[in-house]
Amino acid sequence: MGQEDVVFVGNKPLMNYVLAVVTQFNNGAKDIKIMARGRAISRAVDVAEVSRSRFLQDVTVKGISISTEVLNTDRGETNVSAIEILLGR
Amino acid sequence: MGQEDVVFVGNKPLMNYVLAVVTQFNNGAKDIKIMARGRAISRAVDVAEVSRSRFLQDVTVKGISISTEVLNTDRGETNVSAIEILLGR
Repeated sequence: MGQEDVVFVGNKPLMNYVLAVVTQFNNGAKDIKIMARGRAISRAVDVAEVSRSRFLQDVTVKGISISTEVLNTDRGETNVSAIEILLGR
Repeated sequence: MGQEDVVFVGNKPLMNYVLAVVTQFNNGAKDIKIMARGRAISRAVDVAEVSRSRFLQDVTVKGISISTEVLNTDRGETNVSAIEILLGR
């Protein structure tokens, strides 16, 4: 498992993403990176907290980073904040 | 400045909080903690990113932590995610 598994959080219900995280850990993943941009950042934190406290007691937050990404849209460039939350056992 | 300055991010416009962060650094603060709960978490990340990239180039993200807080409401206890972003020079 050299590669990290990634769960990209968007606008679907919270538990969809929690299920993805729990499933990947149960399939043997050592680390999972939860990523989100813009308003989905709040949901990404919920995903990490619910996965950890309710389903995966042996998993901890190993690191969190934030950044700014530049998106190209029809009306030019726009900045959006992003978060990466690394969960691991 | 033994004590950390805190900016608690809620539902006001982004730049209100950015201004608070920039002002406190310009008044001599070494570290500022940006805190938020629930949906305001996305805005807290925006506050950190905009303050840092646009106004305070010498300031870096020193640490980020997430947690779950229990709120007592009329309808019983409810869980809400929270974030703390520590900015410092």
